[in-house]
Amino acid sequence: MLYQDFDFSTVGNLTYYLYLIFLILTIVLSIVGIIYVLYLLKSIRRLDSGSPEMLRVHDAISEGSKTFLKRQYKTVAIVLLIIFVLFIFISLDIAISFLIGAISSIVASYISMLVSTIANVRVAQACKTSAQKALKIGFNSGMVIGSSVISTSLLAITILYVLYNFTVANIVGFGFGASFAALFAQLGGGIFTKGADIGADIVGKLETGLAEDDVRNPATIADNVGDMVGDCAGRGADLFESSSANNLGAMIIGVTLSAVTANPFFIIFSLISRALGNIAGILGGLFIKSESKNGDDFNPIKEFGRALIATALICIGFFFLLSLISFGGAWWVLFLCAVIGILLALSSYLIVDYYTSAHYRPVKDVIKASESSAATNVISGFALGLESTVLPIVSFVICILLCFFLGEYYGLLIGVGDLFKAGVFGVTVATMGLLAMTSLILAFDGFGPVADNAAGIAEMAHLGNEVRDNLDRLDSAGNTTKALAKGFGMTCAALSAIILYVAYLEETHSSDVNIYHPIIMCTLLIGGVTPFLFSALAIRGAGISADAIVREIKKQFKLNPDIVKGTATPDYTTPIDISTKVALKQMIAPAFLAVGMPLLVGLLFGPIAIAAFLISGTVSGLLLGFVMNTGGGALDNAKKAIEGGLLGGKGSEAHAASIIGDTFGDPLKDTAGPSLHIFIKVINTVSITFGPLFLIFGGLIAF
Amino acid sequence: MLYQDFDFSTVGNLTYYLYLIFLILTIVLSIVGIIYVLYLLKSIRRLDSGSPEMLRVHDAISEGSKTFLKRQYKTVAIVLLIIFVLFIFISLDIAISFLIGAISSIVASYISMLVSTIANVRVAQACKTSAQKALKIGFNSGMVIGSSVISTSLLAITILYVLYNFTVANIVGFGFGASFAALFAQLGGGIFTKGADIGADIVGKLETGLAEDDVRNPATIADNVGDMVGDCAGRGADLFESSSANNLGAMIIGVTLSAVTANPFFIIFSLISRALGNIAGILGGLFIKSESKNGDDFNPIKEFGRALIATALICIGFFFLLSLISFGGAWWVLFLCAVIGILLALSSYLIVDYYTSAHYRPVKDVIKASESSAATNVISGFALGLESTVLPIVSFVICILLCFFLGEYYGLLIGVGDLFKAGVFGVTVATMGLLAMTSLILAFDGFGPVADNAAGIAEMAHLGNEVRDNLDRLDSAGNTTKALAKGFGMTCAALSAIILYVAYLEETHSSDVNIYHPIIMCTLLIGGVTPFLFSALAIRGAGISADAIVREIKKQFKLNPDIVKGTATPDYTTPIDISTKVALKQMIAPAFLAVGMPLLVGLLFGPIAIAAFLISGTVSGLLLGFVMNTGGGALDNAKKAIEGGLLGGKGSEAHAASIIGDTFGDPLKDTAGPSLHIFIKVINTVSITFGPLFLIFGGLIAF
Repeated sequence: MLYQDFDFSTVGNLTYYLYLIFLILTIVLSIVGIIYVLYLLKSIRRLDSGSPEMLRVHDAISEGSKTFLKRQYKTVAIVLLIIFVLFIFISLDIAISFLIGAISSIVASYISMLVSTIANVRVAQACKTSAQKALKIGFNSGMVIGSSVISTSLLAITILYVLYNFTVANIVGFGFGASFAALFAQLGGGIFTKGADIGADIVGKLETGLAEDDVRNPATIADNVGDMVGDCAGRGADLFESSSANNLGAMIIGVTLSAVTANPFFIIFSLISRALGNIAGILGGLFIKSESKNGDDFNPIKEFGRALIATALICIGFFFLLSLISFGGAWWVLFLCAVIGILLALSSYLIVDYYTSAHYRPVKDVIKASESSAATNVISGFALGLESTVLPIVSFVICILLCFFLGEYYGLLIGVGDLFKAGVFGVTVATMGLLAMTSLILAFDGFGPVADNAAGIAEMAHLGNEVRDNLDRLDSAGNTTKALAKGFGMTCAALSAIILYVAYLEETHSSDVNIYHPIIMCTLLIGGVTPFLFSALAIRGAGISADAIVREIKKQFKLNPDIVKGTATPDYTTPIDISTKVALKQMIAPAFLAVGMPLLVGLLFGPIAIAAFLISGTVSGLLLGFVMNTGGGALDNAKKAIEGGLLGGKGSEAHAASIIGDTFGDPLKDTAGPSLHIFIKVINTVSITFGPLFLIFGGLIAF
Repeated sequence: MLYQDFDFSTVGNLTYYLYLIFLILTIVLSIVGIIYVLYLLKSIRRLDSGSPEMLRVHDAISEGSKTFLKRQYKTVAIVLLIIFVLFIFISLDIAISFLIGAISSIVASYISMLVSTIANVRVAQACKTSAQKALKIGFNSGMVIGSSVISTSLLAITILYVLYNFTVANIVGFGFGASFAALFAQLGGGIFTKGADIGADIVGKLETGLAEDDVRNPATIADNVGDMVGDCAGRGADLFESSSANNLGAMIIGVTLSAVTANPFFIIFSLISRALGNIAGILGGLFIKSESKNGDDFNPIKEFGRALIATALICIGFFFLLSLISFGGAWWVLFLCAVIGILLALSSYLIVDYYTSAHYRPVKDVIKASESSAATNVISGFALGLESTVLPIVSFVICILLCFFLGEYYGLLIGVGDLFKAGVFGVTVATMGLLAMTSLILAFDGFGPVADNAAGIAEMAHLGNEVRDNLDRLDSAGNTTKALAKGFGMTCAALSAIILYVAYLEETHSSDVNIYHPIIMCTLLIGGVTPFLFSALAIRGAGISADAIVREIKKQFKLNPDIVKGTATPDYTTPIDISTKVALKQMIAPAFLAVGMPLLVGLLFGPIAIAAFLISGTVSGLLLGFVMNTGGGALDNAKKAIEGGLLGGKGSEAHAASIIGDTFGDPLKDTAGPSLHIFIKVINTVSITFGPLFLIFGGLIAF
């Protein structure tokens, strides 16, 4: 391997034992996280699952989700095995860590889907007695996702690190494996979910006038399956990857700093802090009450807010202790960086909320524009998306600059020669603070599709109005938490990608990437354009899938007109089958683009040019991701606000206009946008994994 | 000034005199270009301007355009004078060249508007006898724009260069002045034209069911005025700026190469080649015949194609001669670079045509998607826009790499020590080849709005069906040439920006911009996000303007119901007045953003960080520009194809869906997209102008 790992002969016994204790503690805490997951799973499973009618709907969703994921994993397994075999010829260690990374990611995303399909019907049933209790069940199901994602990732990385004799270089394949699995999970799930959703909406709402989740719509079960495989399995894989990749990147950067400070804690600080962050999330989640509350007494956003603040405060406490033990006399400087990272997590929430909540100027503008026509609605949603890129970038810039200078100051205080490395580590600590919040935010995120599904089950099983009102409140809260999670996911992806990028530069010693050279300019151009093509392919995939669903629904309505009248049951399985086939086919091209481009650029132009490709691809992917996620979310919420009674409410012209805007935003916010999170990490993990090869090969077109 | 200009004592008398002859020849050819413009103007003015009814419409358009431009220039003049006074304190030379640059740009864009308002009615009248003759008139009016833009720019730069004793450093303000004027022209014109267009369409087509250019629509004259001030004056200013900025950038790069080769021709090669390119365009234009042809005999695209090929061949001939005289023994290597540049101009046409013509797969997909719903139409248009970024970038990369290596090879052959500088000059020569085609392509572009206006006049003056059929053919050909010009404009802007960027690096000696540093990463992020905010402001400006027009039209219809019945004349001037006021107000924020951001980044982070801001802003602006121009163009042409009879033709559901898509695309392709062309040049010219200041000041946040 091309870079030096830490030499433990340079430190005393006490430090060494403390180092081992930290590693053991990480493993123990991860196991605690998994035990808690099993406990939650068991307690959710024990709950009442409602009437036979509700169970029938639930079984159909559960069956569809499992079938999709199994077939998806079969496709992915083939590609995985091919890459695994190729890797063996390069390095057996990397091959093994690649495989373990991919498998852990698949396990985590399967658990995410599993618990959501168990919880959905139970949340609907619980709403019959108490909305607050239903909220708690939904949140706990989300926490199963949160804690299992973080714990599996940490457990696998830590054990691999110990087994490979504390050598980071041997486990970089793990990040690539996790990225690879996540890429397919998010692309496949994203194309499935939006194909089914848009298809169902076009024929259902726009042409036939059916309501959301109407049992007469043949694609309605497929739509609910989509929530499971897209939102749950997809976001689970996304943040599994962010957490894993961030850990590995932080470890690589930590290795270089630990060598010059003779302090090995820099390497494993990200592991132990993540493990404690998971515990903080579990504890913070306990602040969501489970008493019996309904109607106006019941305020889900307040409950979530309390858990968020509690988790942030517990995290700050943990970082205080950890920094004190790990970083010597000037520990408080790096502690400040962690606090800044935690604040960044909170600010990412506030920014997304400002741009996607109907209470503020941006979405109000979109609502107003719906009055003129669908075109002005779409224009204002798109302009909002473009504008929404600014505040996140400003907050990143402030965070990076502050923490870089704090890191340099820390280096100055403890007397490190290489201030620059200390500065970079300061930024890395900020990302650890940010990612410590992951399990709680994943729990929020997992709550969203479960509430959405529960509302769907209630509609299809014809539950009473009061139950459905409660579920609508939960569903609406779920939309807010989903938006929050998406903003957080993008922020994590952005900072993880930047950390990975720096780790790549460290790994390949590419410390001199001069953007003056025409080859560098060209790779900057290539890096910039790749996310555009990637998004186009993802959106087109969803479009093709939607088109197939529209044709199938129209066919069913034509062959059996009784379906629309409600006297015959539609065929729910064929749409699921079609969505599955199309999604599995359409996810291939963008996935190969994301993995193939860094390889192509590396082979053509060598390791230095890749650095330019990476930073440009990251910036461009990040910005496009914001446009799509926020623009799409705003269009969705504008529609919901109109459905809530504004501008004439449901059935008005403004409502029709806003449905068109919402449908335009669908593949942006649920297919291309979240896939871009993964894209910007994949290009970096691919480059890190193949970096040593590029260094040896040098590139066909030399400088 | 901070860089060395050429020292003529190093060359012999023969070279010196030849150098002077080239400069004199440039001036003479520019004057020839201007004389030809005056000749064309006079011959167009002499033509029959049709019936009193046609003249009334014409007068209204002409009046509105002049009023808008005069009020726009008044606003711009105030800002110009403030900046001029500030500049005087820095450098009188730069202040003067800034002012001359801005004034020349304004003169060129005023002439563009003037000739178009004279030609529109005459094209409509000529169509009564021969479509082919009408085509020639429209093309000649376009050539007035093309030749006046190139000639004015060359004349001013060459005379300034001679007056300032052959010192390039003193005239860099010219590029900034031209950019500055162009920014306001394109933003103001773009917001005006789309506000009027969208507003007229929403109430007219979507709500009241009126046809395009129906006299009962109060905003119909404003819509036609918009074509004049947006397309004609806007694109004229855009390419005036590209040509000027490219000349200055090429001269700065030429200075550095001429010093190491003792060959002063590198400095002025861009001037003389541009002057000859203008002559080539004039000669190529003569291949468009003026005989009497109508109906199926008449094929406008074939006529334009012949002129394009002829101009390209004449340009290649001129470059052959020029290279032979200027570049010594290995002249053919740089000649090849020029040919590659000319081929790039042709390829930019083919690419835009592929993505925006209804004959190929991309627009066919959009048309098909219109069948499902407006949402799928917009989705597929947007995905097409995202995808359309790929081929242009690939062609840029191939052109840059090829010409860079050719330039290095040239350096090797003639024995230049600094191969890198020779490589960069190779790329510069390619941009000269590209820009040599400007006057012809501007003529094509200027033809578009004139044909569009002529069709409008024919509709409003109730001319016969046959005349209107001929005009529809011309209008449709005009759409193709406008798309071609937009693709060419973007290509010119891209390569000019890259040349300016390199010139900036040369000027400030920022040859070491390492993207490893967090500050550089932050400025890359800031550079990337700025075009997104710029676009959001431009699109929102158009939206606000459209909203005001919709309210005004509705008010008129409500106050006087006879207008819709056709028994009362609407008030045409109020909508023009409203559009003017809103456009002048809304153009301020994005204009200040484009000029202010490089200054802010420079003051905060110093001259090196600006380089990262520039390249990132250029890449991001370029990509967004492609998405908007091509996506919008494709949506427009999908609508036109459906209006031509596909999927049920006018009045069908697919047609209604495609109108929504077209309206969404309008502010993208005619406000934000073309403004981004200027944006990417403005940030570079601002940086070049203030570069020396940044070098002295150094930046608040140091490295």
